[in-house]
Amino acid sequence: MVTYKDISAAAGRLAPFINRTPLLESESVNDQLGGRLFLKAECLQKTGSFKFRGATNRISQLSEEEKKSGVVAYSSGNHAQGIALAAKLHGAPATIVMPIDAPQMKIKNTERHDARVVLYDRYTENREEIGESIAAETGAVLVPPFDDPHIIAGQGTVGLEVAAQAEALGVSLDYFLAPISGGGLSAGCSVALAEKSPETKIYVAEPAHYDDSTKSLAAGERLRIQPTEKSICDALLQTTPGELTFPLLKSNGAQGVTASDEEVKAAMRLAFGEFKLVVEPGGAVALAAILSGRLELTGKAACVVCTGGNVDAALIRGVIS
Amino acid sequence: MVTYKDISAAAGRLAPFINRTPLLESESVNDQLGGRLFLKAECLQKTGSFKFRGATNRISQLSEEEKKSGVVAYSSGNHAQGIALAAKLHGAPATIVMPIDAPQMKIKNTERHDARVVLYDRYTENREEIGESIAAETGAVLVPPFDDPHIIAGQGTVGLEVAAQAEALGVSLDYFLAPISGGGLSAGCSVALAEKSPETKIYVAEPAHYDDSTKSLAAGERLRIQPTEKSICDALLQTTPGELTFPLLKSNGAQGVTASDEEVKAAMRLAFGEFKLVVEPGGAVALAAILSGRLELTGKAACVVCTGGNVDAALIRGVIS
Repeated sequence: MVTYKDISAAAGRLAPFINRTPLLESESVNDQLGGRLFLKAECLQKTGSFKFRGATNRISQLSEEEKKSGVVAYSSGNHAQGIALAAKLHGAPATIVMPIDAPQMKIKNTERHDARVVLYDRYTENREEIGESIAAETGAVLVPPFDDPHIIAGQGTVGLEVAAQAEALGVSLDYFLAPISGGGLSAGCSVALAEKSPETKIYVAEPAHYDDSTKSLAAGERLRIQPTEKSICDALLQTTPGELTFPLLKSNGAQGVTASDEEVKAAMRLAFGEFKLVVEPGGAVALAAILSGRLELTGKAACVVCTGGNVDAALIRGVIS
Repeated sequence: MVTYKDISAAAGRLAPFINRTPLLESESVNDQLGGRLFLKAECLQKTGSFKFRGATNRISQLSEEEKKSGVVAYSSGNHAQGIALAAKLHGAPATIVMPIDAPQMKIKNTERHDARVVLYDRYTENREEIGESIAAETGAVLVPPFDDPHIIAGQGTVGLEVAAQAEALGVSLDYFLAPISGGGLSAGCSVALAEKSPETKIYVAEPAHYDDSTKSLAAGERLRIQPTEKSICDALLQTTPGELTFPLLKSNGAQGVTASDEEVKAAMRLAFGEFKLVVEPGGAVALAAILSGRLELTGKAACVVCTGGNVDAALIRGVIS
């Protein structure tokens, strides 16, 4: 499947393209939590989220022939932008299938990287089918958002960097928490950390009513949930874990935690005030879980990934104070 | 005076304390400018600005006796917070003299790091005198905001990191631009870059009506200006260059550029939208100068420092869109 070697090779491929994002610490936040919190700021990644990593790892390995035919992807927004820029940088045309209710900023930014955007209604249409039919028509390569070994390996480079950055600080991480949707990031990072920081326990964080991964990891099998409520975490509205990602998370002992929309807003506010970062709702859910005491941090060291920063200005204006 | 060796030694002292801030790039912004722009995000530094570097370099070298007596500083806000946290981490009590009209966030954060804050009126009182009288009364060591070799060397570590980060990317920087108030950061960085990246031209950026450094560098001597207008750049309301900093900038061939308040707001908006960073007005003035075309970037590579992110929520709400 996906091994440490795949992630290490991905890191080499990504090096000329990505921003090397920092691991940030704040004494004030540590005082509040009674432990050490390290924030991996992937909202500072190109295109505003970690998704650019997996996209670059996949697209950089296409043949010249495949690049000419281009790529197609379906995404609620961050994978869309990641694919659009990675495709542009590798000279491949991109078509992206996006929900019509995705944040305006995500749609605009995808178009700005020269991708063709096809909008669909997420409540009545099936994005996988639309993506596959475009692939069949145009000969474009379908790049799925998480269930793909190259995508998982690319996202796993976040874990590789975190391990190296913590080591440079002389810190042994007790916990690693990342927001989860389909699980590409968490699964990849769980593989990287199993090799480079085996003492670190892996947690995935998700919105309260979209806790498919939390329930599935507790049950030891992939469950599908049927959410009856909405969430502000537009990037994390997944209802079942990935087919390739779940076994990796399970075998690496990952567990799930959740946070409410109000807790997510409080985390966005803290990221803004204490860390000077713009974090989107879905990107703040792991931080929210830590701040809400879902994990006891006294005397411990934890790393949370803030995965994205693509949030409309109107939403963030309402959150900061 | 301040040499490359001093800066290199400071980097060693700072390593266990500071956040290693990233050098960020955005393809969209590059497309807009026709060159490569690298943003050194010192707003992500602990206490929300680069000032924590100089403060740590100074305070970490105090004797045990001096630490007991503590430190005193005067500051419009960012030096205050840097000193407060550095003093706390080194077990030294701190008293900070701050203008009564400083951003609330800067005053609150200074107090939160356990410093005693003494407020004064910047239009009728003299902060240097207040600081010196407190030092005389309490025996505390006065730590000036920029005219001090240890402060300059500490801030110069920003330039050292930029040179190393650019080298890792295989990039030769044509320009380095930093916001300037008293010049500690720019002077220190000019020394670091003269050694590690001698091909890089140094620019300092300041608010349109507070262009004392621009005028002084053009004249080749320290001039004092008498501003008749206000600026939103609360951190950069300096009216004459530093006594120790100016000769360093002059001998390293630095030149000045300016930006208007409106240009600064546009830069804050771009930092927010494209780089997912919260940057305060004074911290955005170098970015503003670049975006406003003060330097021609076609085919060139430039690094701008975004020096701080301590901005009240109300101001940033009005700026983002």
